[in-house]
Amino acid sequence: MIHQIRVIYGDTDQMGVVYHANYLRYFEASRAAFLRGLGRSYSDLERMGIALPVVEATCLYRRPAHYEDLLDIHVAVSELRRASMRFVYRAVRDGDVLAEGQTRHAVVDPDSGKPRAMPTELRELVERSADEPDDRLVL
Amino acid sequence: MIHQIRVIYGDTDQMGVVYHANYLRYFEASRAAFLRGLGRSYSDLERMGIALPVVEATCLYRRPAHYEDLLDIHVAVSELRRASMRFVYRAVRDGDVLAEGQTRHAVVDPDSGKPRAMPTELRELVERSADEPDDRLVL
Amino acid sequence: MIHQIRVIYGDTDQMGVVYHANYLRYFEASRAAFLRGLGRSYSDLERMGIALPVVEATCLYRRPAHYEDLLDIHVAVSELRRASMRFVYRAVRDGDVLAEGQTRHAVVDPDSGKPRAMPTELRELVERSADEPDDRLVL
Amino acid sequence: MIHQIRVIYGDTDQMGVVYHANYLRYFEASRAAFLRGLGRSYSDLERMGIALPVVEATCLYRRPAHYEDLLDIHVAVSELRRASMRFVYRAVRDGDVLAEGQTRHAVVDPDSGKPRAMPTELRELVERSADEPDDRLVL
Repeated sequence: MIHQIRVIYGDTDQMGVVYHANYLRYFEASRAAFLRGLGRSYSDLERMGIALPVVEATCLYRRPAHYEDLLDIHVAVSELRRASMRFVYRAVRDGDVLAEGQTRHAVVDPDSGKPRAMPTELRELVERSADEPDDRLVL
Repeated sequence: MIHQIRVIYGDTDQMGVVYHANYLRYFEASRAAFLRGLGRSYSDLERMGIALPVVEATCLYRRPAHYEDLLDIHVAVSELRRASMRFVYRAVRDGDVLAEGQTRHAVVDPDSGKPRAMPTELRELVERSADEPDDRLVL
Repeated sequence: MIHQIRVIYGDTDQMGVVYHANYLRYFEASRAAFLRGLGRSYSDLERMGIALPVVEATCLYRRPAHYEDLLDIHVAVSELRRASMRFVYRAVRDGDVLAEGQTRHAVVDPDSGKPRAMPTELRELVERSADEPDDRLVL
Repeated sequence: MIHQIRVIYGDTDQMGVVYHANYLRYFEASRAAFLRGLGRSYSDLERMGIALPVVEATCLYRRPAHYEDLLDIHVAVSELRRASMRFVYRAVRDGDVLAEGQTRHAVVDPDSGKPRAMPTELRELVERSADEPDDRLVL
């Protein structure tokens, strides 16, 4: 799935490029859009009794993004385990890959914070989405 | 003009609402969208020889915004002076005004940082936009 | 009271100065330091049964702050009412005032979010602090 | 070297913990403090003709940090190559490791953005610092 981000002034730093930490915000926005693309909101996840805190994040910075750039953030699930999942991201502008990253998430109970198994409902939604062409753009 | 913002997790704080400083980021995003709606990018402003630094910002917080809310940020120019201008903003969700604000901007030379007169080109663009119905949504 | 802030790279924007919204973060940091200076943490406020959400924020930007600047944020309470209070701030570098601002806060119950009267304990602490010389630096 | 960070409200998210992207900001603050600890400011680096953009960032999140926590960010250089270097970080609260990360930096010319060799002056400063006990706290 592709989520579009418009770079704002507040995202840049004095090098005139997007500050590196902000890509993790872009990735988060695209992850939420991915879940909305599955027809699930955050409240739906809570209703399923789960939260998905980030336990690991990585980003490779290849080319800088600039103010007002319209970035395509490609997002997909690359790993589904019993009690964790992994998302992968690519930030693309006009065909150029600017940054690539991934985040790993634990599946936890939102109240206790304890690990729990991923609900079958979420697993099936994600697996079904993997069969679909990766060109859906969700705003 | 209306610019839409989707609240991300990183915008919220531990009260479970959008952190107050982030509205200034939303306002900035909508201000840039307003200028794009006039057919002008930031590079165009630079080509005109101007920058518009914020010299004053105010925000009133009426109701909280939450994660994943889709906010309509209404933005308009409320004042055009020789060497400054003022934008006004309203953040609206489902008809409820969540926050209202304004920013005042000096017109300066981007290289020297010195005040200068607003270019006629920008003035006319803004004045013309005021004659148009205020319902254009620019992404 | 004075709280010191070191400007980080992520606080700057492509103008090479601190992005205007970040002053509200600096003010918040200094407000918390002010309360710690009174011997009260946020948990203490919760124990008193109050939260102090921002209902209004204003900032005037006079001179830019730059990367690695060490800013003195002067903070004081300028108004104490039955169910609200106001803080004022000045960001100073080497004697130059860079920005001035204020925030108004409602006194609310943290659970219901409803307005409530300010606890006498907090009122007295704040009033007593106003008698002291305004030169304490709290990190 | 250890750099201390006080968590502000704006760093937390609605889970009541520090939002994951903000650790990269903490790491950046501690990296700058590390360089100041070597007696070098960012302007000194520019005078040497170098900038150190982040080309890779990783963070593992072990335990959450909360509002008003005072974090010790341990920072060290783990790798010095001809045209790149790596910093490692640990965010520690009361002896508990909350997060661990690293960033890799290219050595580039600040004007052209082209890779260049690390100046001997910087290399020697960093190597000398590695011989010193790792317990200096720089604010």
